[in-house]
Amino acid sequence: MKFIDLRSDTVTEPTEEMREAMCKAEVGDDVYEEDPTIKKLEEMAAHILGKEAGLFVPSGTFGNQLSLFTHCERGNEVIVGDDCHIVQHEAGAASIIAGVQLRTVNSDKGALPPEEVLRKIRKEEDIHYPKTGLICLENAHSNGRVILLENFKEIRKIADEYSIPIHLDGARIFNAATYLKVEASEIAKYADSVSFCLSKGLCAPVGSVVVGSKDFIEKAKKRRKIMGGGLRQAGILAAAGIVALEKMRLRLDEDHENAKYLKSKLEEFDFINIVEEVHINMVFFKINRDFENIDFIDYMRKNGIKINPPEEGIWRFVTHYWIKKEDIDKTIDIINKYFKGL
Amino acid sequence: MKFIDLRSDTVTEPTEEMREAMCKAEVGDDVYEEDPTIKKLEEMAAHILGKEAGLFVPSGTFGNQLSLFTHCERGNEVIVGDDCHIVQHEAGAASIIAGVQLRTVNSDKGALPPEEVLRKIRKEEDIHYPKTGLICLENAHSNGRVILLENFKEIRKIADEYSIPIHLDGARIFNAATYLKVEASEIAKYADSVSFCLSKGLCAPVGSVVVGSKDFIEKAKKRRKIMGGGLRQAGILAAAGIVALEKMRLRLDEDHENAKYLKSKLEEFDFINIVEEVHINMVFFKINRDFENIDFIDYMRKNGIKINPPEEGIWRFVTHYWIKKEDIDKTIDIINKYFKGL
Amino acid sequence: MKFIDLRSDTVTEPTEEMREAMCKAEVGDDVYEEDPTIKKLEEMAAHILGKEAGLFVPSGTFGNQLSLFTHCERGNEVIVGDDCHIVQHEAGAASIIAGVQLRTVNSDKGALPPEEVLRKIRKEEDIHYPKTGLICLENAHSNGRVILLENFKEIRKIADEYSIPIHLDGARIFNAATYLKVEASEIAKYADSVSFCLSKGLCAPVGSVVVGSKDFIEKAKKRRKIMGGGLRQAGILAAAGIVALEKMRLRLDEDHENAKYLKSKLEEFDFINIVEEVHINMVFFKINRDFENIDFIDYMRKNGIKINPPEEGIWRFVTHYWIKKEDIDKTIDIINKYFKGL
Amino acid sequence: MKFIDLRSDTVTEPTEEMREAMCKAEVGDDVYEEDPTIKKLEEMAAHILGKEAGLFVPSGTFGNQLSLFTHCERGNEVIVGDDCHIVQHEAGAASIIAGVQLRTVNSDKGALPPEEVLRKIRKEEDIHYPKTGLICLENAHSNGRVILLENFKEIRKIADEYSIPIHLDGARIFNAATYLKVEASEIAKYADSVSFCLSKGLCAPVGSVVVGSKDFIEKAKKRRKIMGGGLRQAGILAAAGIVALEKMRLRLDEDHENAKYLKSKLEEFDFINIVEEVHINMVFFKINRDFENIDFIDYMRKNGIKINPPEEGIWRFVTHYWIKKEDIDKTIDIINKYFKGL
Repeated sequence: MKFIDLRSDTVTEPTEEMREAMCKAEVGDDVYEEDPTIKKLEEMAAHILGKEAGLFVPSGTFGNQLSLFTHCERGNEVIVGDDCHIVQHEAGAASIIAGVQLRTVNSDKGALPPEEVLRKIRKEEDIHYPKTGLICLENAHSNGRVILLENFKEIRKIADEYSIPIHLDGARIFNAATYLKVEASEIAKYADSVSFCLSKGLCAPVGSVVVGSKDFIEKAKKRRKIMGGGLRQAGILAAAGIVALEKMRLRLDEDHENAKYLKSKLEEFDFINIVEEVHINMVFFKINRDFENIDFIDYMRKNGIKINPPEEGIWRFVTHYWIKKEDIDKTIDIINKYFKGL
Repeated sequence: MKFIDLRSDTVTEPTEEMREAMCKAEVGDDVYEEDPTIKKLEEMAAHILGKEAGLFVPSGTFGNQLSLFTHCERGNEVIVGDDCHIVQHEAGAASIIAGVQLRTVNSDKGALPPEEVLRKIRKEEDIHYPKTGLICLENAHSNGRVILLENFKEIRKIADEYSIPIHLDGARIFNAATYLKVEASEIAKYADSVSFCLSKGLCAPVGSVVVGSKDFIEKAKKRRKIMGGGLRQAGILAAAGIVALEKMRLRLDEDHENAKYLKSKLEEFDFINIVEEVHINMVFFKINRDFENIDFIDYMRKNGIKINPPEEGIWRFVTHYWIKKEDIDKTIDIINKYFKGL
Repeated sequence: MKFIDLRSDTVTEPTEEMREAMCKAEVGDDVYEEDPTIKKLEEMAAHILGKEAGLFVPSGTFGNQLSLFTHCERGNEVIVGDDCHIVQHEAGAASIIAGVQLRTVNSDKGALPPEEVLRKIRKEEDIHYPKTGLICLENAHSNGRVILLENFKEIRKIADEYSIPIHLDGARIFNAATYLKVEASEIAKYADSVSFCLSKGLCAPVGSVVVGSKDFIEKAKKRRKIMGGGLRQAGILAAAGIVALEKMRLRLDEDHENAKYLKSKLEEFDFINIVEEVHINMVFFKINRDFENIDFIDYMRKNGIKINPPEEGIWRFVTHYWIKKEDIDKTIDIINKYFKGL
Repeated sequence: MKFIDLRSDTVTEPTEEMREAMCKAEVGDDVYEEDPTIKKLEEMAAHILGKEAGLFVPSGTFGNQLSLFTHCERGNEVIVGDDCHIVQHEAGAASIIAGVQLRTVNSDKGALPPEEVLRKIRKEEDIHYPKTGLICLENAHSNGRVILLENFKEIRKIADEYSIPIHLDGARIFNAATYLKVEASEIAKYADSVSFCLSKGLCAPVGSVVVGSKDFIEKAKKRRKIMGGGLRQAGILAAAGIVALEKMRLRLDEDHENAKYLKSKLEEFDFINIVEEVHINMVFFKINRDFENIDFIDYMRKNGIKINPPEEGIWRFVTHYWIKKEDIDKTIDIINKYFKGL
């Protein structure tokens, strides 16, 4: 059975074109820096994001943690939003791989309040203080929102004043660029390093890319090896990544439109409350009915639809390449049947 | 020249009685657990705080970091107030020694809002989540305030619900007990481990004690060795610590009274604003005049008074055993002269 | 130009059959444990090595470091041969990822002398001692030799006496099994965990598998996430891995035969000394002539042959699937020309 | 009962003169760098060892681990003798505090064979290699032997060739200087940093000093704070340390003479074999009789003599300030009685 999978855009399978590209990819040993397809992908990624160089890594978490590890010395403090992916969903890795101290800021719907960031920076050298080694941003945010560039500009200004680098978790940077109607490089320019995912909305099976200055990427290469991310004929994966950047990157507005359509249909249920503006491909909502989550999830699955349980009472449905308008209609129909039947 | 030193209570020299006790202390090799004076101090400390066992450590930072290291596994998350000593003044040690991820909460004048603590606890096992390994409290807080026990009670309840241990940074727990008019054990009972300082207001030259269950202290002993804190004839220092607990612990209200007196005199200057209630031996204030900090600090020092520069515009004066009422009068007099002369 | 690449078996490109398998692979999101091809590979790997469960990881270094991280607590001591891959070629990762203390033993051509291992085990609990957390073996060794099972048996006995687990770096375990004419599970049975590579001699483009008990693999899964190794539609890579296990695993004797042939031809040069017995697909030798390494390497490359510079004066040529007998003849011919022309 | 304590020189209690000095010590807050007695001790230590600056630390393990932490970046490799204190008796701290990878060398009775050190140095930058960050020496060695300076000279030459710093664990450097009949600075000059103990043979109750260049000590100060070693009125301890350096340092030949006397008396038992030359204040021997260790140790204790159990069959008796010639005669007498009575 082919499911309608609304759990995340991480579930996206590669497209036919990607499969063909992987099948034919020219490869080499990337530890010897001899894989031409990896090189092509890294250069393409750097070019699109307006940076000097790129580095292929196995996952989004790998890209973020490698960036922390490369920017910071152990014991540094990293200013980061409390609700961001690095804090919430990377299993405490920052304290293990990079060995840094997270200094969290309560975000304003994903945007770090500049005055808060300023307040948390260690402004002078003192024997009691760790050094502020990095500020981390995220766009689009994993809460589904896109952060406005005005905010990034202000934080960049503060960071520059104290010579602190910025890393951008751009797992979904192309969703953000689509929403903001700018080139991704316009977002990336506020950061010293960016990591973004080829999987998720872009549908490649495996992999992310970190981009930054040549020096940064050179330094990151050794740390990638330490983390076990030195791969061999990774051009197979890069081939799908190139298709992702060439073809899938520019079609994300479809997913966003579908998310808005889904939102409008969900709003028609009087017991459903949309809890966030829909910026990208995610719809967050509450269901004000008396029912068992597990029972609802099972019912949906039996009817061909996969959904995740809610986090703190909030449900998230995610659209992507494999979700069409008619899938949304079907989803609404099944939800309707379930709650009518309660 | 004998200075009036208002910078901190860490500057307190040992009393005559302490010097004599150190001179005569019966000692042994504490790595062999054969120092009788250390044993006596550790038992006394455990008894006063209502715990099973105690462990002498070289400093307050050592005591806190050892507690994190002992309670947590590497990669655990530690919920802690953003303005507390562990975050602000321990040089990022938590990411190095214990290897944990700090999860900071904005405190309400030092008190952790229980609903915030609850929100940050990792409630279920998930491959994306670190485990919440510890909650840290601080009382009296290094911002000079005493946290009410009602707050501790609520946090203890939450901690118990999720089986999370609590560490209390009680560097100045006897100041808190004095203010609250309770036994220190009444504060300590909400925590699984407490570290407190024999130096600071208690005037011993060097040392802190960590108290907790027998198992906890046994586990901490090996970690103390790893951190380089296995000492030999430490009974010399313990001898002063015993005097601190027997004699100095119960006279802290004098310091608090002097702080209130200092506050009342500072308030008489129309350009000075007291910015915090005075709970213990610290007065925090702003000076609304146009002057150079360095110049003021120099003037004071030339006139026999040591003060620290302000942090973010706020000055802190600290009273202690070596500050008498007449020292405060002299201080006020010199401040008056300085600002008149501007 | 198609090169004869003798630098390593890591340079092996995937076979046609692998490419087709990757093209058609059924995939899913492996973080949700829904990738059927990954599951099939992991089960197949576990079965072949006689263990309960398997886990796909991005590289051999990843597999070894994940195993250290999963077996050990931070600060444990790991007994390991000084010349093994974990010590020599993993960039110091053990001190960063697992945070363990390596305790190296001088190996006897790759075999750990049992009495040395016994001597280095911490036999009792002592406040001055780290705990011995793991013993690491390697077979086939990266020095090209196969360790006899008698040695493994003795070390297993010692390990059992002190309840210490054993990890086997089996990057080339199938080469070892081929040489020893045993099932790989006969080697693996002496270890609690084994990591082996699908790339190298088996020709898959990317990936290794760690196998062990169900509990061990469950624990390793979270640590793999921390290290950034939680992949999505990794079934693409697993598809090639399955071909590697089904088809490539049993043809390694061809590579070994070619290595022996290469050795016999090299021996015909009176200025070349073979320095190790040829067990698997590697030939180590010295060249007793006066020449520039760089010049020789360049000459070979211009004539279509890639070789690595020597390590401490010793050259290593490696055979693999893409090296045929006639490639060896051509190599010998070019070497001959070079040294005649000096 | 006053015991004859032959377990170690760590058991030495402070002398009367030390107690008086501690009683009268002028002190200040050393975190503010205002403790005059600490300053005096640090300068005196630096002067005696021919270095620019010194830093007081709580223990010998603290001094060694702080030195590793200050010299190295995390993930560096440290070349060190397998039988030295850092490997054997510091509880695995190097993998926790500094986060470095120990690369052990089999020593020749404590001396690192220069060719072994040379072989283990990472001579070039390679993505697979950690950087060699430090070489550690120990003199006098905790196995009781003094290493000849010729060996240090050779290792210094190798270290210089590859720009690698050297740390000397000089816990008993003054015993070594006494044996070698040179100034301690003649030993220290081969190292970039030295840590030595004020306790042990020098009889101070607590503390060690690390000496090195001004830059090194400045960098170490912050790391000492991270490790919890920033003390307050530590001048109390420094006062004893000054007596140790002024008075006790130059009388160590007495302890060495007593050790030789003890050795000569032990040799008179035909069932006792001395197993090491006696260089300093330690005698190592085997007892070739059939008896229970525990029973012998108990008998000795009941007769006023404390001894440690053997390590791997070898007993160690240690002389020090509190052991006089007549104590040795008494010890021999009791041993005689015990074995006669078996």
